[in-house]
Amino acid sequence: MPNDLRVQAEQVIERCRYLAQFTEESGEIRRTFLSPAMRECMHTIQGWMQSAGMTVMTDAAGNLRGRYPAMNAAAPCLMIGSHLDTVPNGGAFDGILGVMMGLALIEALRGEKLPFAIELVGFSEEEGVRFHLPFIGSRALVGRADAGMLATKDSGGTTIAEALESFGLEPSKIQECVMGDDAVGFLEFHIEQGIVLESEDRSLGVVQAIAGQTRAELTFTGRANHAGTTPMHLRQDAAAGAAEWVLEVERKGFKTPGLVATVGDFRCSPGAVNVVAGEARASLDVRHADDDVRHWAVEGLLASAASIAKRRELAVTSKLLMDQSAVAMDGGMCAMAAEAVREVGISPLSMVSGAGHDAMILQERVPSTMIFLRSPGGVSHHPEESVRPQDVENALATGLVFLRHTFKPVHKEQSV
Amino acid sequence: MPNDLRVQAEQVIERCRYLAQFTEESGEIRRTFLSPAMRECMHTIQGWMQSAGMTVMTDAAGNLRGRYPAMNAAAPCLMIGSHLDTVPNGGAFDGILGVMMGLALIEALRGEKLPFAIELVGFSEEEGVRFHLPFIGSRALVGRADAGMLATKDSGGTTIAEALESFGLEPSKIQECVMGDDAVGFLEFHIEQGIVLESEDRSLGVVQAIAGQTRAELTFTGRANHAGTTPMHLRQDAAAGAAEWVLEVERKGFKTPGLVATVGDFRCSPGAVNVVAGEARASLDVRHADDDVRHWAVEGLLASAASIAKRRELAVTSKLLMDQSAVAMDGGMCAMAAEAVREVGISPLSMVSGAGHDAMILQERVPSTMIFLRSPGGVSHHPEESVRPQDVENALATGLVFLRHTFKPVHKEQSV
Repeated sequence: MPNDLRVQAEQVIERCRYLAQFTEESGEIRRTFLSPAMRECMHTIQGWMQSAGMTVMTDAAGNLRGRYPAMNAAAPCLMIGSHLDTVPNGGAFDGILGVMMGLALIEALRGEKLPFAIELVGFSEEEGVRFHLPFIGSRALVGRADAGMLATKDSGGTTIAEALESFGLEPSKIQECVMGDDAVGFLEFHIEQGIVLESEDRSLGVVQAIAGQTRAELTFTGRANHAGTTPMHLRQDAAAGAAEWVLEVERKGFKTPGLVATVGDFRCSPGAVNVVAGEARASLDVRHADDDVRHWAVEGLLASAASIAKRRELAVTSKLLMDQSAVAMDGGMCAMAAEAVREVGISPLSMVSGAGHDAMILQERVPSTMIFLRSPGGVSHHPEESVRPQDVENALATGLVFLRHTFKPVHKEQSV
Repeated sequence: MPNDLRVQAEQVIERCRYLAQFTEESGEIRRTFLSPAMRECMHTIQGWMQSAGMTVMTDAAGNLRGRYPAMNAAAPCLMIGSHLDTVPNGGAFDGILGVMMGLALIEALRGEKLPFAIELVGFSEEEGVRFHLPFIGSRALVGRADAGMLATKDSGGTTIAEALESFGLEPSKIQECVMGDDAVGFLEFHIEQGIVLESEDRSLGVVQAIAGQTRAELTFTGRANHAGTTPMHLRQDAAAGAAEWVLEVERKGFKTPGLVATVGDFRCSPGAVNVVAGEARASLDVRHADDDVRHWAVEGLLASAASIAKRRELAVTSKLLMDQSAVAMDGGMCAMAAEAVREVGISPLSMVSGAGHDAMILQERVPSTMIFLRSPGGVSHHPEESVRPQDVENALATGLVFLRHTFKPVHKEQSV
């Protein structure tokens, strides 16, 4: 059995790399929502799913959905899946690995029927590349794909509804995408896309929560002046003020357990070597599993900015770009996932995901959890993104234990 | 007499504003080297100069040169002038005020002849806009307009030689632009373009030196990472490292008397709100009247950058873009200018110019000095650039005292 799983793990990796050939840009991996590359990718996966004994269809939101039947027709259903789309110049594993993991688990069952059905979902859209609206696929499964969403336009003015029609789908049937009432759980395997597991020397982690996120942009305004003729004490240097605040952001991140705080963009105006900056813009990204902690941190950072600006005779304004609440994964599902990891002899790391995932949307309607696989070097959204065969093998072993032993389906009536 | 000077001061300002209408871009002031706007501007000034009793010609470098004769033909010659060109969207006084000052002084003489001739020069090019090579006009007067300079190309591939020819000039005669052997001094009036005189509540300053200047670009390299999935302690954040260094640059400027040190540009890569910066570039501009102090400061800042980078596990490289030595103005000329300012009842401020000026080039060949006029708000290179009538009147009074009393021409033979 371990040997079989190793062969399967290598096949999972090979399949991800094979599917990476379906790209809109030769020389890189770019497979966005409803693209011709996505259609070819889905056709290929559909064939594999059918060979594994699944009934496959594409829903009105472009999600690929395959059903592996239970031992009896009235049984509940466990959903497994992740997204099929990529960012531009992305990697071969972000998202699609979770779909190939589900497929391999069903193949490993070799026709064995369980007391619950399995629905494997390849979500059509998670990254938000084309319509700047992420989670289009998973939103459809929880009933959040409404007329407003369908009217969202891409940069060329095409709406989501029009794009779905061009792909041969029927946007009028989008409400039919909602998951069945028999769904009792959702499990998503995903590469970590970070370096926590690697730095802790762990193979797998169980995600307890998706961090909430604040994004903002701060603008410090001083006075542009000649860098040669303006003595230091007569300056109102926006770049120096913003730089001081960048260090405050970093300090807040270090001082607050579980918080990440980042200034990823910094621009000066006029931005010339010989002109004291009259304006400096700095981005802010703050994430934490506890929304109260995050809000407290953001308020503290805005207060720091105001105090730096006052002392330096600058003005500062901030624009809130995102305030997304944290999402706790289902406690029961997390416990069953962690138990399965331990059963295969591995100590799972309890984690908070700093990035958003489909499981965050699914959790609105069905108890959900995620299992993270170590990301070598933490590299993701990059052609060098990878995953280790041993970690995939561990995840497959975990998945089989989860399916056969630790997952106890709770019917909707009982769970509410 | 004070009343006449006030009228003249207002005329100087009116003339500058009138000449600002000759622009390449309607709605702004943009009068660059050899442009049609420059030709119209020169024609107008030429008429005024001739009316004031001057013989006027345009030399092979496009400089407008007018000669007001001395009481005898063998007398030496004092040169007065500044540049006629502007930066894009510039002000009405930077440069051309010095030419209008010289013209007004000659007009104020009302035909009175002095023991020296006066040559008034409107330099054709000082700002370096079109060819990214500043001081084209003044270089020609000191014999530095060689074949290499003439071969310099603009962004469209046109050489300076070709541009001069298109304007109707003869680049082959560029060596004939060199100032006459009778030249014994150069005086340049210029707006300060800074806020030192205003902050010290002074009308006029005498420039003792043009600061030396170092320009460089530093690149901090860390590791781009997901802002949500990378804990603080596992980051190599190039933006935070560069921000720390920006504050070091500012601190060095404050701690070192006479030094100005500026980071005017700061850019992150990839520069996304949700990505820890893998690279940050910061510009550096350092100026001081003493080249040793400047070099010491730059070395210290490069060492700070290396130490910050080492502690943060970043790499840092620097590219030197400019290392221009300081130029001391002529002591005798500065003393005569300061004496003239005091004679009109004003206490002159001894100043170091943080910006380059034509006088810095002329000083290579002839004893030179500059008189700065207060810049309201320190505003320059901007449509709101201005000058106060009272300060222009003070400068005119100073100029007349300089011409009639404090300037003692020293013949070349004696001065060497």
